[in-house]
Amino acid sequence: MKKLLFTPGPLSTSRSVKEAMLEDVGSRDTEFIEAVQEIRDQLLNLAGISTASGFECVIMQGSGTFAIESVISSCLGPGDQLLILVNGAYGERMARIAAIHKITYHTLAFPEHEPVNPEELKRFLETHADISHLACVHCETTSGLFNPVDQIAAICRKRHIHCIVDAMSSFGGTPVPMDRWPIDFLISSSNKCIEGVPGFGFVLCSRTELEKCRGLARSLSLDLFDQWAGLKVNGQFRFTPPTLSLLAFRQALRELNQEGGVVARERRYKTNQTILLEGMQQLGFKPYLRPELRGHIISSFLYPSDGTFHFERFYGKLQRRGLIIYPGKLSQAQAFRIGHIGQLFPDDIRALLSAIAEIIREEEGTDNEKIQDQKKINP
Amino acid sequence: MKKLLFTPGPLSTSRSVKEAMLEDVGSRDTEFIEAVQEIRDQLLNLAGISTASGFECVIMQGSGTFAIESVISSCLGPGDQLLILVNGAYGERMARIAAIHKITYHTLAFPEHEPVNPEELKRFLETHADISHLACVHCETTSGLFNPVDQIAAICRKRHIHCIVDAMSSFGGTPVPMDRWPIDFLISSSNKCIEGVPGFGFVLCSRTELEKCRGLARSLSLDLFDQWAGLKVNGQFRFTPPTLSLLAFRQALRELNQEGGVVARERRYKTNQTILLEGMQQLGFKPYLRPELRGHIISSFLYPSDGTFHFERFYGKLQRRGLIIYPGKLSQAQAFRIGHIGQLFPDDIRALLSAIAEIIREEEGTDNEKIQDQKKINP
Repeated sequence: MKKLLFTPGPLSTSRSVKEAMLEDVGSRDTEFIEAVQEIRDQLLNLAGISTASGFECVIMQGSGTFAIESVISSCLGPGDQLLILVNGAYGERMARIAAIHKITYHTLAFPEHEPVNPEELKRFLETHADISHLACVHCETTSGLFNPVDQIAAICRKRHIHCIVDAMSSFGGTPVPMDRWPIDFLISSSNKCIEGVPGFGFVLCSRTELEKCRGLARSLSLDLFDQWAGLKVNGQFRFTPPTLSLLAFRQALRELNQEGGVVARERRYKTNQTILLEGMQQLGFKPYLRPELRGHIISSFLYPSDGTFHFERFYGKLQRRGLIIYPGKLSQAQAFRIGHIGQLFPDDIRALLSAIAEIIREEEGTDNEKIQDQKKINP
Repeated sequence: MKKLLFTPGPLSTSRSVKEAMLEDVGSRDTEFIEAVQEIRDQLLNLAGISTASGFECVIMQGSGTFAIESVISSCLGPGDQLLILVNGAYGERMARIAAIHKITYHTLAFPEHEPVNPEELKRFLETHADISHLACVHCETTSGLFNPVDQIAAICRKRHIHCIVDAMSSFGGTPVPMDRWPIDFLISSSNKCIEGVPGFGFVLCSRTELEKCRGLARSLSLDLFDQWAGLKVNGQFRFTPPTLSLLAFRQALRELNQEGGVVARERRYKTNQTILLEGMQQLGFKPYLRPELRGHIISSFLYPSDGTFHFERFYGKLQRRGLIIYPGKLSQAQAFRIGHIGQLFPDDIRALLSAIAEIIREEEGTDNEKIQDQKKINP
């Protein structure tokens, strides 16, 4: 059965993206090296930058977290201090990485249902003059909200603070003009809005910043500078790359262009979001975030307050219909998530809504039967 | 053009292994969780062990090196000392990992054309009583030789030294009875003799050893214990796994069984090796290793001593025929490599030999023309 993934990634990809993996390719062969170069150039291009304008793209094997850890564990020197802005699980994860690597770090936390407040950030920095690096999450997949990365980045630049952005779920699904905002390190992965398959993350960064990472890494595999140096020498990876995920990704990038680029894709995702939110609210579900904070990547819905909702059963019934949704990750509220990204179109969202309506009717039927059954027992 | 990869991996895989990637699967969906469980059970099975007999399989995203680094950086505590046996680039790489993580380590080196000598190892250990862990490479892909891991492991056990084996290129291509030898940590990857596609490595280890790793890891992504703990709780990965590489790998494991298991596969690889060595020697190429040391995974051939051999040209001519070979990695000798593993059969080896014979004739023709040309200039 064909499945549709309403998830934050791995997500539904086009048939042609998957078919790009139907060949054997050598990791040191010229054909593959050319594919990797095309990918790196295209990724810079998506962020409005290029090697000519002083930027580089480094691909890192593993999940997105591996790429984030490669940046955090490669770009801070002994005297440096990192500030991490936290309003969800992904901000917290960066703090955990900093702690493991014994990096001096601070966290500035905001509620999960609120974006980072730039004024509070400014006040914090006024009393913490030693902060050299700042890390934040663009779209917090925990809730689905977007943080004001443009304002955060501008505050950083004014204070000569290096700005690291986890743009895992947003990159490719919304414009991120890296040099204008300006961001020093941007991290995303293959299985998000570019609609590739999982296998690697990537880091976009200024060459100047990258060069400062030489010798600072705290591991071999996740050494950001070394990984770049390897790619620079002969276009090859230091260690076996996920060759076929990369071929799929090249195809995904081409299809993103064919769709009309990031602006067109953002429009499709926003349409998906609008249809989903309207439909879910008609079915009685309450979105977790207030209207102006709802992002177009993923939506969080609260468990209905009447206590009859059973997520695993709901998930299972959708799954048997080939529709895969996602559990919640909020620390304070019971919620589930539905993604609008990947190869999903308005009709897919409508199909999901119909299935949910059907399941609700089934459940109500079951409940009525239970009431009937109870009446029989206690007439 | 269909390509044949005569490489140590990524290697040629079956069409059906690649086709297993033609579906979308959710990383937290039950269907995927079942696939991961099948893979983990099958891998233990291949090593003659099981969870019932006290062993575990941990899958780690990234290349094989990521999995090796996850073991070395997760299993040694503050007072521990690591001995690394080195006779090629992969032994050296483990030493580099130990150095980066500031692990106290020693190396015991052997020439690249000689296997580890167990007697020398015993003598070394007699004067180094503080060694707690030993790491060695089963098949050194640098040269193609096999180290006597059974003897090394037995020496370790007698001295209560934890034995770590990089079985990257060997596992699946030769029997490795982990409990009998006995090995504490065995590491391999998806794109080697099991004939899957790249994307992850895996670690087989005793549960007792794994439990000792709790809290010792030096990174978040490569924390071996945490990765296992995550899989144990709900069968899910802590961080996005390479879903489709895993589906391909499940298919590859099934096909390995269909072929007749590791013994049958080893037989095929050995047949490939025999045909290759005979043919290459007839064509005038000298194997790097002496006969009794030649392994059935990959062969190293010396550049012809007459100085006329130009590897890049040779490689390019084969590549244009869809035949991908591999450069050398020896520190002391100029050589190139030809792998016998992956979906390669005797006819493929013969096709490669014919192409090489053809290229040699072409080159001789070119040389004769050059001589003719020179005669014209200096008659």
